[in-house]
Amino acid sequence: MMDSQAFKKILEERSARSWEMYLPHLSVDCVVFGFHNASLKVLLTKLKDSELWGLPGGYVLKTENIHSAASRILFERTGASDIYLQQFRVFGDLNRSEDFFKDFSDDLWNKQRFVSIGFYALVDFSKVTLITDDISEACEWRSIAELPEFMMDHQSIFEKALTVLRRQLNYKPIGLNLLPEKFTLPEIQKLYEIILGKKLNRGNFYRKMMRYDILEKLNETRKGGAHKAPDLYSFDLEKYQSALKNGFNEGW
Amino acid sequence: MMDSQAFKKILEERSARSWEMYLPHLSVDCVVFGFHNASLKVLLTKLKDSELWGLPGGYVLKTENIHSAASRILFERTGASDIYLQQFRVFGDLNRSEDFFKDFSDDLWNKQRFVSIGFYALVDFSKVTLITDDISEACEWRSIAELPEFMMDHQSIFEKALTVLRRQLNYKPIGLNLLPEKFTLPEIQKLYEIILGKKLNRGNFYRKMMRYDILEKLNETRKGGAHKAPDLYSFDLEKYQSALKNGFNEGW
Repeated sequence: MMDSQAFKKILEERSARSWEMYLPHLSVDCVVFGFHNASLKVLLTKLKDSELWGLPGGYVLKTENIHSAASRILFERTGASDIYLQQFRVFGDLNRSEDFFKDFSDDLWNKQRFVSIGFYALVDFSKVTLITDDISEACEWRSIAELPEFMMDHQSIFEKALTVLRRQLNYKPIGLNLLPEKFTLPEIQKLYEIILGKKLNRGNFYRKMMRYDILEKLNETRKGGAHKAPDLYSFDLEKYQSALKNGFNEGW
Repeated sequence: MMDSQAFKKILEERSARSWEMYLPHLSVDCVVFGFHNASLKVLLTKLKDSELWGLPGGYVLKTENIHSAASRILFERTGASDIYLQQFRVFGDLNRSEDFFKDFSDDLWNKQRFVSIGFYALVDFSKVTLITDDISEACEWRSIAELPEFMMDHQSIFEKALTVLRRQLNYKPIGLNLLPEKFTLPEIQKLYEIILGKKLNRGNFYRKMMRYDILEKLNETRKGGAHKAPDLYSFDLEKYQSALKNGFNEGW
Protein backbone atom coordinates (compact mmCIF):
# COMPACT_ATOMS: atom_id res chain seq x y z
CA MET A 1 0.00 0.00 0.00
CA MET A 2 1.34 3.41 0.98
CA ASP A 3 5.07 4.19 1.10
CA SER A 4 5.23 7.84 1.95
CA GLN A 5 8.40 8.57 3.91
CA ALA A 6 6.73 10.58 6.68
CA PHE A 7 4.14 7.93 7.44
CA LYS A 8 6.73 5.17 7.31
CA LYS A 9 8.94 7.06 9.72
CA ILE A 10 6.17 7.40 12.31
CA LEU A 11 5.33 3.69 12.21
CA GLU A 12 8.98 2.66 12.43
CA GLU A 13 9.72 4.98 15.32
CA ARG A 14 6.75 3.69 17.22
CA SER A 15 7.35 0.01 16.52
CA ALA A 16 9.81 -0.85 19.31
CA ARG A 17 7.63 0.84 21.90
CA SER A 18 4.56 -1.06 20.67
CA TRP A 19 6.38 -4.40 21.03
CA GLU A 20 7.11 -3.39 24.61
CA MET A 21 3.69 -2.09 25.63
CA TYR A 22 1.11 -4.23 23.86
CA LEU A 23 0.14 -7.89 23.56
CA PRO A 24 1.51 -8.97 20.18
CA HIS A 25 -0.80 -10.22 17.41
CA LEU A 26 -3.93 -8.88 19.07
CA SER A 27 -5.81 -5.77 17.99
CA VAL A 28 -9.16 -4.09 18.58
CA ASP A 29 -11.38 -2.56 15.90
CA CYS A 30 -14.35 -0.40 16.85
CA VAL A 31 -17.48 0.02 14.77
CA VAL A 32 -19.03 3.15 16.21
CA PHE A 33 -22.49 3.87 14.87
CA GLY A 34 -23.67 7.42 15.28
CA PHE A 35 -27.32 8.43 15.31
CA HIS A 36 -28.74 11.92 15.21
CA ASN A 37 -31.76 13.55 13.60
CA ALA A 38 -32.95 10.45 11.80
CA SER A 39 -29.56 9.67 10.28
CA LEU A 40 -27.21 6.73 10.91
CA LYS A 41 -23.48 7.08 10.38
CA VAL A 42 -20.28 5.22 11.19
CA LEU A 43 -17.00 6.62 12.50
CA LEU A 44 -14.13 6.19 10.05
CA THR A 45 -10.54 7.29 9.86
CA LYS A 46 -8.31 7.84 6.86
CA LEU A 47 -4.61 7.05 7.12
CA LYS A 48 -2.13 9.62 5.84
CA ASP A 49 -1.16 9.04 2.22
CA SER A 50 -3.91 6.51 1.63
CA GLU A 51 -7.16 6.71 -0.25
CA LEU A 52 -8.65 4.00 1.95
CA TRP A 53 -10.70 4.40 5.09
CA GLY A 54 -10.66 2.23 8.18
CA LEU A 55 -12.34 1.67 11.51
CA PRO A 56 -10.75 3.29 14.55
CA GLY A 57 -8.64 0.67 16.23
CA GLY A 58 -5.65 -0.03 18.41
CA TYR A 59 -3.93 -2.57 20.60
CA VAL A 60 -4.28 -4.11 24.05
CA LEU A 61 -1.81 -2.98 26.71
CA LYS A 62 -0.12 -5.84 28.54
CA THR A 63 -1.62 -4.37 31.70
CA GLU A 64 -5.26 -3.89 30.69
CA ASN A 65 -8.37 -5.99 30.11
CA ILE A 66 -9.61 -6.17 26.53
CA HIS A 67 -12.77 -4.24 27.34
CA SER A 68 -10.68 -1.45 28.89
CA ALA A 69 -8.56 -1.42 25.76
CA ALA A 70 -11.61 -0.84 23.58
CA SER A 71 -12.85 1.96 25.87
CA ARG A 72 -9.45 3.62 25.92
CA ILE A 73 -9.10 3.43 22.12
CA LEU A 74 -12.49 5.01 21.66
CA PHE A 75 -11.80 7.67 24.28
CA GLU A 76 -8.63 8.60 22.43
CA ARG A 77 -10.70 9.14 19.29
CA THR A 78 -13.82 10.74 20.64
CA GLY A 79 -13.09 12.08 24.10
CA ALA A 80 -16.21 10.20 25.22
CA SER A 81 -15.81 7.90 28.18
CA ASP A 82 -19.25 6.46 28.86
CA ILE A 83 -19.89 4.74 25.55
CA TYR A 84 -21.70 1.39 25.80
CA LEU A 85 -19.30 -0.89 23.91
CA GLN A 86 -20.00 -4.47 23.06
CA GLN A 87 -17.66 -7.06 21.59
CA PHE A 88 -19.31 -8.90 18.72
CA ARG A 89 -16.79 -11.04 16.85
CA VAL A 90 -13.15 -11.92 16.36
CA PHE A 91 -11.57 -11.55 12.93
CA GLY A 92 -8.67 -13.98 12.81
CA ASP A 93 -7.97 -15.13 9.28
CA LEU A 94 -4.42 -15.26 7.99
CA ASN A 95 -3.37 -12.27 5.89
CA ARG A 96 -6.25 -10.09 6.96
CA SER A 97 -3.76 -7.24 7.58
CA GLU A 98 -0.22 -8.43 6.90
CA ASP A 99 -0.20 -7.51 3.20
CA PHE A 100 -1.21 -3.97 3.94
CA PHE A 101 2.30 -3.29 5.26
CA LYS A 102 4.20 -5.41 2.76
CA ASP A 103 6.63 -2.62 1.85
CA PHE A 104 7.83 -2.33 5.43
CA SER A 105 10.53 -4.31 7.23
CA ASP A 106 9.47 -7.66 8.64
CA ASP A 107 9.95 -6.74 12.29
CA LEU A 108 7.61 -3.74 12.09
CA TRP A 109 4.92 -4.09 14.74
CA ASN A 110 2.09 -3.35 12.31
CA LYS A 111 3.25 -5.92 9.76
CA GLN A 112 2.69 -8.89 12.08
CA ARG A 113 -0.35 -11.10 11.90
CA PHE A 114 -3.12 -9.54 13.97
CA VAL A 115 -6.23 -11.24 15.29
CA SER A 116 -8.71 -8.43 15.82
CA ILE A 117 -11.52 -8.25 18.33
CA GLY A 118 -14.47 -6.28 16.98
CA PHE A 119 -16.43 -4.01 19.34
CA TYR A 120 -19.42 -1.93 18.42
CA ALA A 121 -21.17 1.03 19.97
CA LEU A 122 -24.05 3.32 19.15
CA VAL A 123 -23.80 6.97 20.20
CA ASP A 124 -25.45 10.31 19.57
CA PHE A 125 -22.90 11.73 17.16
CA SER A 126 -23.81 15.32 17.93
CA LYS A 127 -22.40 14.84 21.44
CA VAL A 128 -18.99 13.56 20.40
CA THR A 129 -15.85 15.50 19.52
CA LEU A 130 -13.63 13.73 17.04
CA ILE A 131 -9.85 13.61 17.38
CA THR A 132 -7.49 12.93 14.48
CA ASP A 133 -4.28 11.17 15.53
CA ASP A 134 -0.78 11.52 14.09
CA ILE A 135 -1.05 8.76 11.49
CA SER A 136 -4.48 9.80 10.23
CA GLU A 137 -5.45 12.73 8.09
CA ALA A 138 -9.17 12.49 8.80
CA CYS A 139 -11.59 11.10 11.37
CA GLU A 140 -15.21 11.53 10.26
CA TRP A 141 -18.80 10.36 10.54
CA ARG A 142 -19.80 8.81 7.22
CA SER A 143 -23.33 7.88 6.24
CA ILE A 144 -23.80 4.10 6.14
CA ALA A 145 -25.69 4.58 2.87
CA GLU A 146 -22.62 6.00 1.08
CA LEU A 147 -19.48 4.37 2.40
CA PRO A 148 -15.99 4.94 0.97
CA GLU A 149 -13.57 2.14 0.07
CA PHE A 150 -12.23 0.37 3.16
CA MET A 151 -8.74 -0.89 3.99
CA MET A 152 -7.99 -4.55 4.84
CA ASP A 153 -11.09 -6.48 5.95
CA HIS A 154 -12.76 -3.45 7.54
CA GLN A 155 -15.72 -3.57 5.17
CA SER A 156 -16.67 -7.03 6.44
CA ILE A 157 -16.07 -6.03 10.07
CA PHE A 158 -18.47 -3.15 9.54
CA GLU A 159 -21.10 -5.38 7.88
CA LYS A 160 -20.94 -7.97 10.63
CA ALA A 161 -21.38 -5.26 13.27
CA LEU A 162 -24.46 -3.93 11.49
CA THR A 163 -25.95 -7.44 11.36
CA VAL A 164 -25.34 -7.92 15.07
CA LEU A 165 -26.71 -4.47 15.97
CA ARG A 166 -29.90 -5.22 14.04
CA ARG A 167 -30.25 -8.64 15.65
CA GLN A 168 -29.79 -7.16 19.11
CA LEU A 169 -32.87 -5.01 18.58
CA ASN A 170 -34.76 -8.27 19.14
CA TYR A 171 -33.56 -8.88 22.64
CA LYS A 172 -32.03 -5.69 24.01
CA PRO A 173 -33.43 -2.19 24.49
CA ILE A 174 -32.00 0.72 22.56
CA GLY A 175 -32.54 4.46 22.56
CA LEU A 176 -31.10 5.73 25.83
CA ASN A 177 -28.68 8.60 25.07
CA LEU A 178 -29.90 8.54 21.46
CA LEU A 179 -33.41 9.91 21.90
CA PRO A 180 -34.21 13.05 23.89
CA GLU A 181 -35.23 12.38 27.49
CA LYS A 182 -38.90 12.73 26.49
CA PHE A 183 -39.94 11.31 23.15
CA THR A 184 -43.02 10.23 21.22
CA LEU A 185 -43.73 6.71 19.99
CA PRO A 186 -43.24 7.79 16.35
CA GLU A 187 -39.80 9.08 17.32
CA ILE A 188 -38.63 5.81 18.84
CA GLN A 189 -40.18 3.91 15.92
CA LYS A 190 -38.12 6.07 13.55
CA LEU A 191 -34.95 5.10 15.45
CA TYR A 192 -35.71 1.40 14.92
CA GLU A 193 -36.56 1.97 11.27
CA ILE A 194 -33.31 3.76 10.58
CA ILE A 195 -31.20 1.09 12.22
CA LEU A 196 -33.11 -1.70 10.49
CA GLY A 197 -33.17 0.12 7.18
CA LYS A 198 -36.87 -0.60 6.67
CA LYS A 199 -40.36 0.66 7.52
CA LEU A 200 -42.20 -0.97 10.40
CA ASN A 201 -45.91 -1.44 10.86
CA ARG A 202 -47.07 1.13 13.41
CA GLY A 203 -49.53 -1.07 15.30
CA ASN A 204 -47.10 -4.00 15.59
CA PHE A 205 -44.33 -1.69 16.72
CA TYR A 206 -46.42 -0.15 19.49
CA ARG A 207 -47.68 -3.51 20.76
CA LYS A 208 -44.19 -4.97 20.84
CA MET A 209 -42.72 -1.91 22.52
CA MET A 210 -45.43 -2.03 25.21
CA ARG A 211 -44.73 -5.72 25.78
CA TYR A 212 -41.07 -4.87 26.36
CA ASP A 213 -42.27 -2.82 29.31
CA ILE A 214 -39.43 -0.29 29.41
CA LEU A 215 -41.38 2.88 28.63
CA GLU A 216 -43.07 5.22 31.04
CA LYS A 217 -45.97 7.26 29.70
CA LEU A 218 -45.73 10.86 30.91
CA ASN A 219 -48.62 13.16 31.73
CA GLU A 220 -47.47 15.46 28.98
CA THR A 221 -47.94 15.83 25.29
CA ARG A 222 -45.77 17.32 22.57
CA LYS A 223 -47.21 20.77 21.90
CA GLY A 224 -47.00 22.82 18.75
CA GLY A 225 -48.10 20.69 15.83
CA ALA A 226 -51.23 21.11 13.79
CA HIS A 227 -52.43 17.64 14.74
CA LYS A 228 -53.56 16.26 18.04
CA ALA A 229 -50.56 16.60 20.38
CA PRO A 230 -48.86 13.18 20.70
CA ASP A 231 -48.15 11.59 24.09
CA LEU A 232 -44.65 11.79 25.50
CA TYR A 233 -42.74 8.86 26.95
CA SER A 234 -39.45 8.34 28.71
CA PHE A 235 -37.48 5.20 29.56
CA ASP A 236 -38.05 3.56 32.92
CA LEU A 237 -34.35 3.47 33.75
CA GLU A 238 -34.51 0.57 36.17
CA LYS A 239 -36.40 -1.65 33.72
CA TYR A 240 -34.24 -0.47 30.84
CA GLN A 241 -30.99 -1.38 32.60
CA SER A 242 -32.39 -4.70 33.71
CA ALA A 243 -33.46 -5.54 30.14
CA LEU A 244 -30.05 -4.43 28.85
CA LYS A 245 -28.41 -6.85 31.25
CA ASN A 246 -30.78 -9.81 30.95
CA GLY A 247 -32.37 -9.36 27.54
CA PHE A 248 -36.06 -9.28 26.79
CA ASN A 249 -37.82 -12.50 27.49
CA GLU A 250 -39.08 -12.69 23.95
CA GLY A 251 -39.01 -15.72 21.76
CA TRP A 252 -38.88 -19.16 23.30
CA MET B 1 -2.20 -24.97 41.67
CA MET B 2 -0.81 -28.40 40.88
CA ASP B 3 2.90 -29.12 41.20
CA SER B 4 3.22 -32.78 40.42
CA GLN B 5 6.59 -33.48 38.86
CA ALA B 6 5.33 -35.53 35.92
CA PHE B 7 2.80 -32.93 34.85
CA LYS B 8 5.32 -30.13 35.28
CA LYS B 9 7.83 -31.97 33.15
CA ILE B 10 5.40 -32.38 30.25
CA LEU B 11 4.50 -28.68 30.24
CA GLU B 12 8.14 -27.60 30.47
CA GLU B 13 9.24 -29.91 27.69
CA ARG B 14 6.51 -28.67 25.45
CA SER B 15 6.97 -24.97 26.20
CA ALA B 16 9.75 -24.07 23.74
CA ARG B 17 7.91 -25.79 20.89
CA SER B 18 4.69 -23.94 21.75
CA TRP B 19 6.46 -20.58 21.60
CA GLU B 20 7.64 -21.56 18.13
CA MET B 21 4.39 -22.92 16.72
CA TYR B 22 1.60 -20.81 18.16
CA LEU B 23 0.52 -17.18 18.33
CA PRO B 24 1.46 -16.09 21.85
CA HIS B 25 -1.17 -14.88 24.32
CA LEU B 26 -4.06 -16.27 22.31
CA SER B 27 -6.01 -19.40 23.16
CA VAL B 28 -9.23 -21.13 22.18
CA ASP B 29 -11.73 -22.70 24.57
CA CYS B 30 -14.54 -24.90 23.30
CA VAL B 31 -17.88 -25.37 25.00
CA VAL B 32 -19.20 -28.53 23.39
CA PHE B 33 -22.77 -29.30 24.31
CA GLY B 34 -23.84 -32.88 23.78
CA PHE B 35 -27.43 -33.93 23.32
CA HIS B 36 -28.80 -37.44 23.28
CA ASN B 37 -31.96 -39.14 24.51
CA ALA B 38 -33.41 -36.06 26.16
CA SER B 39 -30.25 -35.22 28.05
CA LEU B 40 -27.89 -32.23 27.69
CA LYS B 41 -24.23 -32.53 28.68
CA VAL B 42 -21.01 -30.61 28.24
CA LEU B 43 -17.57 -31.97 27.33
CA LEU B 44 -15.02 -31.49 30.10
CA THR B 45 -11.46 -32.54 30.71
CA LYS B 46 -9.59 -33.05 33.95
CA LEU B 47 -5.92 -32.18 34.13
CA LYS B 48 -3.57 -34.69 35.70
CA ASP B 49 -3.04 -34.11 39.41
CA SER B 50 -5.88 -31.63 39.68
CA GLU B 51 -9.34 -31.87 41.16
CA LEU B 52 -10.57 -29.20 38.78
CA TRP B 53 -12.22 -29.64 35.42
CA GLY B 54 -11.85 -27.48 32.36
CA LEU B 55 -13.14 -26.94 28.85
CA PRO B 56 -11.18 -28.54 26.03
CA GLY B 57 -8.91 -25.89 24.58
CA GLY B 58 -5.71 -25.15 22.78
CA TYR B 59 -3.78 -22.57 20.80
CA VAL B 60 -3.74 -21.03 17.34
CA LEU B 61 -0.96 -22.12 14.99
CA LYS B 62 0.88 -19.23 13.37
CA THR B 63 -0.20 -20.71 10.05
CA GLU B 64 -3.93 -21.26 10.62
CA ASN B 65 -7.12 -19.21 10.82
CA ILE B 66 -8.78 -19.06 14.24
CA HIS B 67 -11.78 -21.05 13.05
CA SER B 68 -9.49 -23.80 11.76
CA ALA B 69 -7.75 -23.79 15.13
CA ALA B 70 -11.03 -24.43 16.93
CA SER B 71 -11.95 -27.24 14.52
CA ARG B 72 -8.54 -28.86 14.89
CA ILE B 73 -8.64 -28.65 18.69
CA LEU B 74 -12.04 -30.30 18.75
CA PHE B 75 -11.01 -32.94 16.25
CA GLU B 76 -8.05 -33.81 18.46
CA ARG B 77 -10.48 -34.37 21.34
CA THR B 78 -13.38 -36.03 19.64
CA GLY B 79 -12.23 -37.35 16.28
CA ALA B 80 -15.22 -35.54 14.80
CA SER B 81 -14.50 -33.23 11.90
CA ASP B 82 -17.86 -31.83 10.80
CA ILE B 83 -18.93 -30.14 14.01
CA TYR B 84 -20.75 -26.82 13.55
CA LEU B 85 -18.63 -24.51 15.70
CA GLN B 86 -19.49 -20.94 16.47
CA GLN B 87 -17.36 -18.30 18.17
CA PHE B 88 -19.38 -16.50 20.83
CA ARG B 89 -17.14 -14.31 22.99
CA VAL B 90 -13.59 -13.37 23.90
CA PHE B 91 -12.41 -13.71 27.50
CA GLY B 92 -9.61 -11.24 27.95
CA ASP B 93 -9.34 -10.08 31.54
CA LEU B 94 -5.98 -9.89 33.24
CA ASN B 95 -5.12 -12.86 35.44
CA ARG B 96 -7.82 -15.10 34.05
CA SER B 97 -5.25 -17.88 33.74
CA GLU B 98 -1.81 -16.65 34.83
CA ASP B 99 -2.22 -17.56 38.50
CA PHE B 100 -3.09 -21.11 37.66
CA PHE B 101 0.57 -21.75 36.78
CA LYS B 102 2.12 -19.60 39.49
CA ASP B 103 4.47 -22.35 40.69
CA PHE B 104 6.10 -22.62 37.28
CA SER B 105 8.96 -20.60 35.80
CA ASP B 106 8.02 -17.27 34.26
CA ASP B 107 8.94 -18.16 30.71
CA LEU B 108 6.65 -21.21 30.64
CA TRP B 109 4.27 -20.91 27.66
CA ASN B 110 1.20 -21.71 29.76
CA LYS B 111 2.01 -19.12 32.41
CA GLN B 112 1.68 -16.16 30.04
CA ARG B 113 -1.39 -13.99 29.86
CA PHE B 114 -3.88 -15.60 27.47
CA VAL B 115 -6.83 -13.95 25.79
CA SER B 116 -9.18 -16.79 24.97
CA ILE B 117 -11.68 -17.01 22.15
CA GLY B 118 -14.75 -19.03 23.14
CA PHE B 119 -16.36 -21.34 20.57
CA TYR B 120 -19.40 -23.48 21.14
CA ALA B 121 -20.91 -26.46 19.40
CA LEU B 122 -23.82 -28.79 19.87
CA VAL B 123 -23.39 -32.44 18.87
CA ASP B 124 -25.04 -35.81 19.31
CA PHE B 125 -22.79 -37.17 22.02
CA SER B 126 -23.54 -40.78 21.15
CA LYS B 127 -21.73 -40.27 17.83
CA VAL B 128 -18.49 -38.94 19.26
CA THR B 129 -15.45 -40.84 20.51
CA LEU B 130 -13.57 -39.03 23.24
CA ILE B 131 -9.78 -38.82 23.35
CA THR B 132 -7.80 -38.10 26.51
CA ASP B 133 -4.51 -36.29 25.82
CA ASP B 134 -1.21 -36.58 27.68
CA ILE B 135 -1.83 -33.82 30.21
CA SER B 136 -5.37 -34.93 31.06
CA GLU B 137 -6.52 -37.87 33.09
CA ALA B 138 -10.13 -37.71 31.94
CA CYS B 139 -12.27 -36.36 29.10
CA GLU B 140 -15.98 -36.85 29.78
CA TRP B 141 -19.51 -35.74 29.08
CA ARG B 142 -20.94 -34.19 32.25
CA SER B 143 -24.57 -33.32 32.79
CA ILE B 144 -25.11 -29.55 32.83
CA ALA B 145 -27.36 -30.06 35.85
CA GLU B 146 -24.51 -31.41 38.00
CA LEU B 147 -21.27 -29.75 37.06
CA PRO B 148 -17.97 -30.24 38.90
CA GLU B 149 -15.71 -27.41 40.05
CA PHE B 150 -14.04 -25.62 37.14
CA MET B 151 -10.50 -24.32 36.72
CA MET B 152 -9.70 -20.67 35.97
CA ASP B 153 -12.69 -18.78 34.50
CA HIS B 154 -14.10 -21.83 32.73
CA GLN B 155 -17.33 -21.74 34.72
CA SER B 156 -18.17 -18.32 33.34
CA ILE B 157 -17.13 -19.30 29.82
CA PHE B 158 -19.54 -22.22 30.07
CA GLU B 159 -22.37 -20.04 31.39
CA LYS B 160 -21.93 -17.44 28.68
CA ALA B 161 -22.01 -20.16 26.02
CA LEU B 162 -25.26 -21.54 27.42
CA THR B 163 -26.82 -18.06 27.36
CA VAL B 164 -25.76 -17.56 23.74
CA LEU B 165 -26.97 -21.03 22.71
CA ARG B 166 -30.38 -20.34 24.24
CA ARG B 167 -30.58 -16.94 22.60
CA GLN B 168 -29.69 -18.41 19.21
CA LEU B 169 -32.78 -20.62 19.38
CA ASN B 170 -34.64 -17.40 18.59
CA TYR B 171 -33.06 -16.75 15.25
CA LYS B 172 -31.32 -19.92 14.09
CA PRO B 173 -32.58 -23.44 13.45
CA ILE B 174 -31.34 -26.32 15.55
CA GLY B 175 -31.83 -30.08 15.49
CA LEU B 176 -29.98 -31.33 12.43
CA ASN B 177 -27.63 -34.16 13.49
CA LEU B 178 -29.27 -34.12 16.93
CA LEU B 179 -32.67 -35.54 16.09
CA PRO B 180 -33.17 -38.70 14.03
CA GLU B 181 -33.77 -38.05 10.34
CA LYS B 182 -37.52 -38.46 10.90
CA PHE B 183 -38.98 -37.05 14.08
CA THR B 184 -42.28 -36.02 15.64
CA LEU B 185 -43.20 -32.51 16.76
CA PRO B 186 -43.14 -33.56 20.43
CA GLU B 187 -39.57 -34.80 19.88
CA ILE B 188 -38.30 -31.51 18.50
CA GLN B 189 -40.22 -29.63 21.21
CA LYS B 190 -38.41 -31.75 23.80
CA LEU B 191 -35.05 -30.74 22.29
CA TYR B 192 -35.93 -27.06 22.70
CA GLU B 193 -37.19 -27.62 26.24
CA ILE B 194 -34.02 -29.36 27.31
CA ILE B 195 -31.78 -26.66 25.92
CA LEU B 196 -33.92 -23.90 27.41
CA GLY B 197 -34.35 -25.71 30.70
CA LYS B 198 -38.10 -25.05 30.75
CA LYS B 199 -41.44 -26.37 29.52
CA LEU B 200 -42.95 -24.76 26.43
CA ASN B 201 -46.58 -24.37 25.53
CA ARG B 202 -47.39 -26.95 22.87
CA GLY B 203 -49.64 -24.80 20.69
CA ASN B 204 -47.24 -21.85 20.68
CA PHE B 205 -44.32 -24.12 19.90
CA TYR B 206 -46.04 -25.69 16.90
CA ARG B 207 -47.20 -22.37 15.49
CA LYS B 208 -43.76 -20.85 15.80
CA MET B 209 -42.04 -23.87 14.33
CA MET B 210 -44.40 -23.82 11.34
CA ARG B 211 -43.71 -20.12 10.82
CA TYR B 212 -39.98 -20.91 10.68
CA ASP B 213 -40.81 -22.98 7.61
CA ILE B 214 -37.93 -25.45 7.86
CA LEU B 215 -39.91 -28.66 8.43
CA GLU B 216 -41.27 -31.02 5.84
CA LYS B 217 -44.26 -33.11 6.85
CA LEU B 218 -43.84 -36.70 5.70
CA ASN B 219 -46.58 -39.05 4.56
CA GLU B 220 -45.72 -41.35 7.44
CA THR B 221 -46.61 -41.70 11.08
CA ARG B 222 -44.73 -43.14 14.02
CA LYS B 223 -46.18 -46.65 14.55
CA GLY B 224 -46.30 -48.66 17.70
CA GLY B 225 -47.77 -46.53 20.49
CA ALA B 226 -51.10 -47.00 22.18
CA HIS B 227 -52.24 -43.55 21.05
CA LYS B 228 -52.99 -42.20 17.62
CA ALA B 229 -49.76 -42.49 15.64
CA PRO B 230 -48.09 -39.03 15.49
CA ASP B 231 -47.01 -37.46 12.20
CA LEU B 232 -43.38 -37.62 11.20
CA TYR B 233 -41.35 -34.65 9.97
CA SER B 234 -37.88 -34.07 8.62
CA PHE B 235 -35.89 -30.91 7.97
CA ASP B 236 -36.08 -29.29 4.56
CA LEU B 237 -32.30 -29.14 4.17
CA GLU B 238 -32.22 -26.25 1.75
CA LYS B 239 -34.44 -24.06 3.93
CA TYR B 240 -32.61 -25.19 7.07
CA GLN B 241 -29.19 -24.22 5.68
CA SER B 242 -30.51 -20.93 4.41
CA ALA B 243 -32.00 -20.11 7.84
CA LEU B 244 -28.74 -21.15 9.51
CA LYS B 245 -26.89 -18.70 7.32
CA ASN B 246 -29.31 -15.78 7.33
CA GLY B 247 -31.28 -16.24 10.53
CA PHE B 248 -35.04 -16.41 10.84
CA ASN B 249 -36.75 -13.22 9.91
CA GLU B 250 -38.44 -13.04 13.27
CA GLY B 251 -38.67 -10.01 15.46
CA TRP B 252 -38.44 -6.54 13.97
